[in-house]
Amino acid sequence: MHLKIDSKTLAEALKKVEKVVNAKHSTTILQGIYMEATHEELILIGSDSTETFRFHVPVDGESLEVIEPGKTVLPKQVSEISKKMKKDIEMRLTGFKLLLKSGKTEFDLNTFDPEEYPKLPKLDLENPTLSLKGTEFSKLIKKTAFAASDSEIRPILTGVCLNLDGNNLNLISTDSHRLGLAKTSSTSGNTIKLVIPAKSLDKLSKTFDLQEDLHIYCESDNQLIFRSGALMFYCRLLEGNYPDTSRLIPNEFKSEMKVNRIEFLNAMDLVKELANNADNGKGGVVKLHVNGAATISSHTAQAGKGTVVVDYESLEGEDEYTISFSARYMMDALKAIEDDFVNFKFQGAMRPFLLTPCESNFEELQLILPVRTI
Amino acid sequence: MHLKIDSKTLAEALKKVEKVVNAKHSTTILQGIYMEATHEELILIGSDSTETFRFHVPVDGESLEVIEPGKTVLPKQVSEISKKMKKDIEMRLTGFKLLLKSGKTEFDLNTFDPEEYPKLPKLDLENPTLSLKGTEFSKLIKKTAFAASDSEIRPILTGVCLNLDGNNLNLISTDSHRLGLAKTSSTSGNTIKLVIPAKSLDKLSKTFDLQEDLHIYCESDNQLIFRSGALMFYCRLLEGNYPDTSRLIPNEFKSEMKVNRIEFLNAMDLVKELANNADNGKGGVVKLHVNGAATISSHTAQAGKGTVVVDYESLEGEDEYTISFSARYMMDALKAIEDDFVNFKFQGAMRPFLLTPCESNFEELQLILPVRTI
Repeated sequence: MHLKIDSKTLAEALKKVEKVVNAKHSTTILQGIYMEATHEELILIGSDSTETFRFHVPVDGESLEVIEPGKTVLPKQVSEISKKMKKDIEMRLTGFKLLLKSGKTEFDLNTFDPEEYPKLPKLDLENPTLSLKGTEFSKLIKKTAFAASDSEIRPILTGVCLNLDGNNLNLISTDSHRLGLAKTSSTSGNTIKLVIPAKSLDKLSKTFDLQEDLHIYCESDNQLIFRSGALMFYCRLLEGNYPDTSRLIPNEFKSEMKVNRIEFLNAMDLVKELANNADNGKGGVVKLHVNGAATISSHTAQAGKGTVVVDYESLEGEDEYTISFSARYMMDALKAIEDDFVNFKFQGAMRPFLLTPCESNFEELQLILPVRTI
Repeated sequence: MHLKIDSKTLAEALKKVEKVVNAKHSTTILQGIYMEATHEELILIGSDSTETFRFHVPVDGESLEVIEPGKTVLPKQVSEISKKMKKDIEMRLTGFKLLLKSGKTEFDLNTFDPEEYPKLPKLDLENPTLSLKGTEFSKLIKKTAFAASDSEIRPILTGVCLNLDGNNLNLISTDSHRLGLAKTSSTSGNTIKLVIPAKSLDKLSKTFDLQEDLHIYCESDNQLIFRSGALMFYCRLLEGNYPDTSRLIPNEFKSEMKVNRIEFLNAMDLVKELANNADNGKGGVVKLHVNGAATISSHTAQAGKGTVVVDYESLEGEDEYTISFSARYMMDALKAIEDDFVNFKFQGAMRPFLLTPCESNFEELQLILPVRTI
């Protein structure tokens, strides 16, 4: 392998794949970054065996010139090194030694045997299971993934359930105390139901340029593949049955209140400062009392109590009630909804309540279980 | 106590003193923030008993209006609360309850007894031991404090030694493997020698607006007081004798090399990626070989080796030698010096070397002990 590459091009390509690479991985070969140069492109792969990123840079003769094709697996340090180099880089592989040269800088890197690197499954790029706008999928993730569990007690709940049913696509996640659901339409026609780790979706959101189209390939039971532009992401699916959440979502409510979302969020942010058990990771408990206005309050035995009154826009049904909930859950849900106004849908003080956008063309809901207080 | 204050004014004042306040401090009263309103000013104090910040806001009838003087000790949460309030705040103390009101927001805070709050020592503000420009003191700190030890094995080395000898002021710190020294002149005429915790100086740099003059008061053996504008900082001194460092600093050298500081720093930053033991907190070991140019190199058994050649500007004395040192120590020292060029002063492969600025009117030096390599 012998090539010349612009340092910025190399650094940006490595950045796309290095996130999942662990220099102390128990499988030695995965400690490195796979690199393959052909006369058409430079391929980079990083993997921790459950998640894999693949990126390619086309040969354009300007930022990349391949003199002699070849492949190697580089130590992870190549990523930091290329970031700090300011000029063109020449790379030449001799046996298992890679010479990386740029101006008066020379690195002699010990490489791994590329034949030992796990092969990626063959893929029919032209036939994705599902294609949609990156921005749209990103929205679906933003509105659901945060509600997944971060505890491994029920591993399936650390995932986000993707349901594709003909032309309907929805994402659901729940940690059993709250649930986020977002729907969109699709032209796919396929039917699949699978559970993607919420952390993988988070990595996807952060690594992909979601301005482009996103293609999703589902060719085996335990892996899903995402592709957008030159980047591909292979992620292991969660095994097990996702709980049936449809029966959890109520249709009838005692009361519906329309409030300004940002006003409500700011009020929560203020009141949560005096919420009890604020350090239990759920941001403590706050109380909502509706009676002519929405009064949010909190108290701690030590520091005192706080109250913020938010005027509602409109209210239908029961016009006086009290309900308590986790401050963090409420704020997460209010942040996920992007509308100016939200509907607060109340079923009873000890029953789950819903938050939905008022005007959005995005079909979504946030469900939260109340907290019992004395 | 009854007053009206602009929320931004209150939030900024609380921010100045809250840094040292620990809501779980074993001395209950120090969990709070002391507040005293007179017809002239509002005084705020935060303390963890070793470090204390005091700030005052003058009554101007606009951003602050004191209706009834008084004093209290507020729970620390008041700081976050005031930050999130967007309007004028009214504060009224009734017994041990403080009502904090702003628009439709009300907080009823449980306060502590202000009589229990530790009294600050009286101070003759007009007669500081030493006054100098804040920016100048900040420079002295920047060039020395990083070299203090972060290990408590020899507590005295976690401090910075301040020497004021008539018209000379210098700061020294060492962790016994490196030393930073910076000098300036002073019109004080006093003579003192004391050891300030490096962490306190760091807090000082971050909290004070060092564009203003800084006044230092030394009225007891165990405390030093800093004042700049409306802010005061009381800090506990370290007890014990600071080691005599004067005998550590060599005067004669075998070789002096002038190099471009940023070029040398960038080369270090690149080469350190392959430095051995890079995770020991000292950034691994790199080697400098001088022979017609300065060649910096590193290697690890696993990943390989790296070399960067930096051309020197000039060299006097011995023109071929090799020396090894901690990458982090070298980079810290190069960052502390602000000159375009540094002098690398060499005594021998196993003897400490010096880095000094080439043109600076600031008298300073960075001394580093080499690392023995095989």
